Amino acid sequence: MAEFDLIAAIHARATTRGDVVLGIGDDAALLQVPAGMQLVVATDTLNAGVHFPHDTAPADIGWKALAVNLSDLAAMGALPAWCTLSLSLPDGDAAWVDGFLDGFLALAAQHDVALVGGDTTRGPLSVCVTALGLIEPGRALRRDGARVGDEVWVTGTLGDGAGALAQWRAGVGVDPALRDRLDRPTPRVAAGCALAGIANACIDVSDGLLADLGQVARASGVGIEIAIDALPASAALVDSFNAEIRRSLQAAGGDDYELCFCAPRAADAQIAAVAASISIPITRIGCVVAGGGVQAVDATGEVWAPASAGYDHFPMRT
Amino acid sequence: MAEFDLIAAIHARATTRGDVVLGIGDDAALLQVPAGMQLVVATDTLNAGVHFPHDTAPADIGWKALAVNLSDLAAMGALPAWCTLSLSLPDGDAAWVDGFLDGFLALAAQHDVALVGGDTTRGPLSVCVTALGLIEPGRALRRDGARVGDEVWVTGTLGDGAGALAQWRAGVGVDPALRDRLDRPTPRVAAGCALAGIANACIDVSDGLLADLGQVARASGVGIEIAIDALPASAALVDSFNAEIRRSLQAAGGDDYELCFCAPRAADAQIAAVAASISIPITRIGCVVAGGGVQAVDATGEVWAPASAGYDHFPMRT
Repeated sequence: MAEFDLIAAIHARATTRGDVVLGIGDDAALLQVPAGMQLVVATDTLNAGVHFPHDTAPADIGWKALAVNLSDLAAMGALPAWCTLSLSLPDGDAAWVDGFLDGFLALAAQHDVALVGGDTTRGPLSVCVTALGLIEPGRALRRDGARVGDEVWVTGTLGDGAGALAQWRAGVGVDPALRDRLDRPTPRVAAGCALAGIANACIDVSDGLLADLGQVARASGVGIEIAIDALPASAALVDSFNAEIRRSLQAAGGDDYELCFCAPRAADAQIAAVAASISIPITRIGCVVAGGGVQAVDATGEVWAPASAGYDHFPMRT
Repeated sequence: MAEFDLIAAIHARATTRGDVVLGIGDDAALLQVPAGMQLVVATDTLNAGVHFPHDTAPADIGWKALAVNLSDLAAMGALPAWCTLSLSLPDGDAAWVDGFLDGFLALAAQHDVALVGGDTTRGPLSVCVTALGLIEPGRALRRDGARVGDEVWVTGTLGDGAGALAQWRAGVGVDPALRDRLDRPTPRVAAGCALAGIANACIDVSDGLLADLGQVARASGVGIEIAIDALPASAALVDSFNAEIRRSLQAAGGDDYELCFCAPRAADAQIAAVAASISIPITRIGCVVAGGGVQAVDATGEVWAPASAGYDHFPMRT
């Protein structure tokens, strides 16, 4: 399939919205930003063999490429509106692109996100998505707003995606529920929007809980203490791993795309109401303290450390 | 260099603007779009070995990755404001990233573009940039506005970048002036802004003049006739190639990042004034006719066709 045909195939399937003045098919897209709203922009690339196993179904790659970007918008408390897609493919395989779009556009439709532009190029399989969202001024959930005395919370469960990856790498059977969480993470868009105005700081868990919370601690100039045994786990994760491996997967595995946020104690009832409204558990896992860094402790008060500190694309060479 | 350190290195060098509420360092950027302006969004990826030779200097890759995106905004008549950068690297080579930023940020500074976010990931060398710009409603230069009777114009000269690539592929010495045009194309931002309100349709020449004008013809429902010998050539191109090869490079080579636009005859004086104001020649190369498709003719009126019809990332397999 030639490049123009590929773009035409994508164009034919992409849905639009009333605020898209000009979508796919010109040099750039034209968008109408509603008056009084700030623009929220996130860009993330997924590379084959790095961000997903080579045997991942095209539809799952499409879903995940958009999901990780919507997750970034959710972590700001923003409502997604538009996205662009830059697709590098080894060849112009029309069936692959069609499968990819099945997943990508299914998630886009769930959140009324219009695909407004991008490009297709030849190269090793790589997907770069830019997601654009909207938020009222002053409401964004930043990393730098955590305050001493805040409680730390996380949506959903942790460690499922990393658990699937660990099983896949070990060559053992991958639990379908875990694999689904790895391949089709759920961006917590409704949670993020509901938490704007409630939480003081927020981040999405992509590199691993402790590593990501380290960013919050650094940006906010605080310390964070996590109760390692309070981290929420799915039944599938509990069934698949012993307690110590499970702790590592939950605290340092990454690929969760849950929201981790800090909020004052006075917000407990509001947080419970948010959890009820979105039908997703939100679990208190720690607190913000004076000092710096992130520490996990077990039930006896002993400091707990994972074997690996979180996913780093460019680990230090020794 | 670890991933966080890479991001910190980029953050330290990136400049900002007053309308950036929150730039690099959070889950997403927060931007203040001026009231009454439309947002213009372009995304383009450059892959090593496809969009630039593997021996290209990091600074030139940085320049070009931003330039091709600013060129897309220019083709809409938009003023660039912000960008994101997604960088896939085989390893975390700090010196390479520093060189890359030299070129990227030099061009960003020329156009007061703030780098507001993105990511760094491990993978084959690939650069995905999203450029965001602004334009007043109703002024955008679209592909679909060409009208029968319009004249067709192009900024600068054509074929230089393709000429450099042809020399490089042939293993002969590459003319430095041509190589500079390949590595450091100039996005015609001032021309695009000045032409908004004057031109009826516009595109930037990236895949090759005839192929790109084919998009304008298709979108506008018109035909376009080009005088092959009217295409502007640099002295370096004339010195380096015979007339027939030069014609192919100019008409079908691509990688020019000049603006090609259609405007009514009544705009001739305004176009001359634009050319004078930006100190770049703007040359009349053809006209818009009834029908469809793009045809090039020589001085005798004979139809001229290039050996290749323009760059296609996924050429049809026979």
